[in-house]
This record gives sequence, C-alpha cells and structure tokens, in this order.
Amino acid sequence: MKIDDPMLLAEVTAAFYDYERALMADDLAALDRLFHDASTTNRYGIGETLYGIEEIRAFRARRGGSPPRLLGRVAITVYGDRFATADAEFEREGGGAPGRQTQSWVKFADGWKVVSAHVSLQGSIS
Amino acid sequence: MKIDDPMLLAEVTAAFYDYERALMADDLAALDRLFHDASTTNRYGIGETLYGIEEIRAFRARRGGSPPRLLGRVAITVYGDRFATADAEFEREGGGAPGRQTQSWVKFADGWKVVSAHVSLQGSIS
Repeated sequence: MKIDDPMLLAEVTAAFYDYERALMADDLAALDRLFHDASTTNRYGIGETLYGIEEIRAFRARRGGSPPRLLGRVAITVYGDRFATADAEFEREGGGAPGRQTQSWVKFADGWKVVSAHVSLQGSIS
Repeated sequence: MKIDDPMLLAEVTAAFYDYERALMADDLAALDRLFHDASTTNRYGIGETLYGIEEIRAFRARRGGSPPRLLGRVAITVYGDRFATADAEFEREGGGAPGRQTQSWVKFADGWKVVSAHVSLQGSIS
C-alpha cells in the first residue's frame, strides 16, 4: 500500500487547515462541508459524545464557536488512495491542559471528509 | 465506495475485540501485533501523547496494564476495502468520567492494524 502519496497528502493537508480555519471562524457551512454527511460520522468532543452528522450539526449550531486555539504538532499520514489520519495537538488561548485532536479522513467523490473525530484535553492519569 | 462490506466488517470487529481482550490481559505481544509497526502510528492516551510505535511500546512496557474497564456503545464502520474506524465508549471500574476511544484501522498484507488511536475521559467543558 502506498503511504503518503504526495498529491493526496497535499490535498488532505489543505482540507485539514481549511477545517481549522472554519473552526476558528465558526463557519458552520464550511465545517459541515468537511464532515461526511452520514449517520456513521461520529465526533467525540472534549465535553460531548456525538453520533451521526445530525448530532454533530445540532451541537455546532448551539455551541456558538470553539474557544480560540493554536495548533501545535500536526501529524498527517495517507494510507493508499483514499484514507488519511490527522493527529494534532493544540493549546487553547489562556493555557490549560494540552489539547489533542484526531481525525479520520476519507476521500469521497466530492472530496476529503472527516468520518470520525476525537478531541480531548490531556489528563493527569493514564 | 462500498460501506461496511460484511466480510471486512466481521474481520475488523473481531480485531477490535481481540484488542480489547489483549488490553485487559495486558498481553503486550497481542497489543503490539494489532498496532501498525511504523513511525507514523500514533496514540493519544488519557494522560500521554505518543508518536510512533516505539513510544507506544515504551509506554505499554512501563505502564503495567490498563485499569479494568467495560465497553459501552461501539460504532465500527468500514470504508472501501481496507479502512475502518472504531469509536467506542467505556466505563472504568469504580466509575468516574465516561471514557471514549477512537481507532483508525487499516488492512495491511498481514491483517488489520490500528494506525491512530485516541483515548480520553469526557470533560465538563466543550
């Protein structure tokens, strides 16, 4: 299996940063466009556990935007011709526990989409 | 793209539960066999942020086993012919905040392997 095809890696990396910009701008349409529109798309957030795109949309609509954050280390890997993982650290404005975000991306006919995401703050236990 | 090919879904579901059994038994060889042996394999745990299989192995070796836990809701989806996501909730013995685990699985020549994993306890903020 080819790992990190350069063109695909560039595509999904661009999508990853599009998502980050949309998150910081609370651009709900762009966020929605970057998540796969399906009942199988899940997002575990820091304080919420969401199943299916409808729960994710409802959460975003009532949330009123993510707290400002700065990305740290970002590790993106492409497996084969239509799957990628994006693992990233972030720091919230004002500090606090280190943030971590993982996303699974799949390339569909209409582009790269997140099919599963998980965001957390690092704890003090293992 | 085919979603949830029945044979592949059965395979990766079996691998998911193999992993859970290995985790509860602290079977380091089995855990290692189910993670992709590569510097691109990452694991964000509740209290640790690990890059590459070597950091993951070192963590497991010194950890001395995961606290006992019971799986709750499990959502596994297969995208195409060699990629899957496994999103699961768990409760640790003795209670505490709800646990969540997400894994990205890729089917290599030697079987299904986790290429990215993230474990967290749900917080009270978003």
